Amino acid sequence: MYRGTYPHYPQPLLLLLYIILLLFKQIEGDLLIMKIYCNQEILLNNINIVAKACSSRTAMPILECILINAKENEVTLVGNNLEVGIESTFEADVTENGLIAIEAKIFSEIIKKMPQGEVEISLLPNNMLSIIGGKAKFTISAQPGEDFPKLPIVQTQTSYTLSQVVLKDMIRQTIFSVSQDETRPILTGEMFHLKNGELNLVSVDGFRISYRCASLYTEQSLEEMEGVVPGKALAELNKILSTEAEDKVTIYFGTNNVLFDLGYSKVVSRLLEGEFLKYAQVFSNDYETQITIDRKDLLMSIERAALISKEGRKNPIRIELIQDQMIISSNTDLGTVHEELDIELDGIELKIAFNPKYLIEALKSIDDDVVVINFLSAMAPCIIQPLEGNDYKYLILPIRVTA
Amino acid sequence: MYRGTYPHYPQPLLLLLYIILLLFKQIEGDLLIMKIYCNQEILLNNINIVAKACSSRTAMPILECILINAKENEVTLVGNNLEVGIESTFEADVTENGLIAIEAKIFSEIIKKMPQGEVEISLLPNNMLSIIGGKAKFTISAQPGEDFPKLPIVQTQTSYTLSQVVLKDMIRQTIFSVSQDETRPILTGEMFHLKNGELNLVSVDGFRISYRCASLYTEQSLEEMEGVVPGKALAELNKILSTEAEDKVTIYFGTNNVLFDLGYSKVVSRLLEGEFLKYAQVFSNDYETQITIDRKDLLMSIERAALISKEGRKNPIRIELIQDQMIISSNTDLGTVHEELDIELDGIELKIAFNPKYLIEALKSIDDDVVVINFLSAMAPCIIQPLEGNDYKYLILPIRVTA
Repeated sequence: MYRGTYPHYPQPLLLLLYIILLLFKQIEGDLLIMKIYCNQEILLNNINIVAKACSSRTAMPILECILINAKENEVTLVGNNLEVGIESTFEADVTENGLIAIEAKIFSEIIKKMPQGEVEISLLPNNMLSIIGGKAKFTISAQPGEDFPKLPIVQTQTSYTLSQVVLKDMIRQTIFSVSQDETRPILTGEMFHLKNGELNLVSVDGFRISYRCASLYTEQSLEEMEGVVPGKALAELNKILSTEAEDKVTIYFGTNNVLFDLGYSKVVSRLLEGEFLKYAQVFSNDYETQITIDRKDLLMSIERAALISKEGRKNPIRIELIQDQMIISSNTDLGTVHEELDIELDGIELKIAFNPKYLIEALKSIDDDVVVINFLSAMAPCIIQPLEGNDYKYLILPIRVTA
Repeated sequence: MYRGTYPHYPQPLLLLLYIILLLFKQIEGDLLIMKIYCNQEILLNNINIVAKACSSRTAMPILECILINAKENEVTLVGNNLEVGIESTFEADVTENGLIAIEAKIFSEIIKKMPQGEVEISLLPNNMLSIIGGKAKFTISAQPGEDFPKLPIVQTQTSYTLSQVVLKDMIRQTIFSVSQDETRPILTGEMFHLKNGELNLVSVDGFRISYRCASLYTEQSLEEMEGVVPGKALAELNKILSTEAEDKVTIYFGTNNVLFDLGYSKVVSRLLEGEFLKYAQVFSNDYETQITIDRKDLLMSIERAALISKEGRKNPIRIELIQDQMIISSNTDLGTVHEELDIELDGIELKIAFNPKYLIEALKSIDDDVVVINFLSAMAPCIIQPLEGNDYKYLILPIRVTA
């Protein structure tokens, strides 16, 4: 009998072993709620992109974090400060899917200093993130990925595509005259006006208007669309736009948001609400005085003349247009300056004064060697534009000075 | 009779003419109390050198100025903030000798923006300085050169000469441990100890000592000499020391001042008074534990470990030396880090803790691939030195930590 029951004997032991094994598996499953192997350099590049949308010092610590979303051999990183959100996706060896948020600053510093090669990132219990590269092992406290604010979804059928390097140039050439005055929020952004296969970009502060225009890839008659994108979002977008001519960006305008799709990464920004300046009506081709001038010579002369206006450059420079000469002068406590420049003049002679900063910023952003400037009177704005074409227009208000 | 007096008639007129001519000559003499023609680029280089000794925002506006001393086809510029003085001389076409002081910032900005080529500088009445380059003309108010504080004269017979690039390296490799604590002024400088044809440079703050040594060109037995030069003066000197191996610097120690003669320019600084640390006694060759380690690997490991000590890096890193391994670890609110490094160990195993900043700054300043570190105990300082020779020694105090 004993012999007969012998094989039954170990059953409770086997059951116990089975339970222990199950438990281990459970624990192991818990331990490995995320596991990624990826290249240090690729990871760092992607961190640098999305970190531009992370807050620094906010009342909501989760906004200082980067969300890591590991799913089926792809890792998506997300930064989101609720004004701008950036996500960036790259291929990686994901052995366990998972979602976790880690403070952007420490994550970026650790990955930056890691030895080149493979980095292993895995999530341990209690939201501790393990980061291993070579013989360096970090364990950093992280936050549940579920707490991270989702990027808004931009719903639209229409999209507009252009070259990234063109959009990068357009932003650089207009962003300096975005208003810093928060009392008129709409002017702290740039108007994107899409019409007839063209993108028109316009920024306005109280003293000047900057306008740039470029062709879209999609020339077919698309719906006319406009939206005002915050200057801060454009500044961050500009940093991650490629300088390669073949890279494209596709823009989607939703009701309250805009999405810039760069392929490898996406930038989402809210749109500003309010009435923007009717810019098309402002730029007139009428003039009483028109000059053609070497852009670089003019820029350098104004930069010199601005030197003696000291502290903040609030003192005006005076410009006198006579026959074939422009005379620039300024006179402050510090001393005087007098500059002469060769010009081609069409129309009547004129004396006018400007804040040199506005002229300098416009002239610096232009790439052409020669520019045309139209004047109506000493009280009316001047308009700087190219010798040919309509790619850009800079309108600048003069300063009224006593003779 | 009338006829006879006729030739006498114009005499008063002639006299008047003569007086007017004299007066004109006088005025012209006054107008041209200084006139220089020089090259814009050469002038700018010399301004940049001496401007390092100009004060910014001081109660004595003359200290914000550069003195221009034009004399017989040479122009000498001087900056002097009463702690450090720098003078620099260059050849120029001086048609009228003169002396004037002009605010360094505006002078430097104007010359920087001037067109390339010749610049004309002349002094007008009422201390107005005219600066002309191409078609750009400035008139800037200046100050009488007589008001500018003279550089102290360093009286000594003995001089010490070494390569500029060597002194530049020595300063770079020691200046980081100059004390910032003004309560012990003597430690805010570096000891220059000249002995047996060698220059020994030493800096000390409360936590570490940096020592560098190099041969002088003059090997003959010169008088032993020592002086403590303010760290701020060395920082400015360092910026203008050449990186060309053949350029020499000659050092003259006076009673209260030191002169560094770079040939094209001269730097004068006051010396600090007080008792400096007797550094020679501090560096012992005794050890209980000696390790030989790859400098770059160690630096990178410590830099990583320092990342999680957050804000100011005040948290210590722990080092464990066992057999052929160094284990670096740190543990803060942010998380933990664990690093392993290969070492050669001679002596007993040891656990010790340091402020990572001090190790990082020392290891960064060393050029060697491999370094030797000597330890006596967990309470005694470690000494980092080269595998061979005595060119440098870095002593760093440990931090006492609870196990």
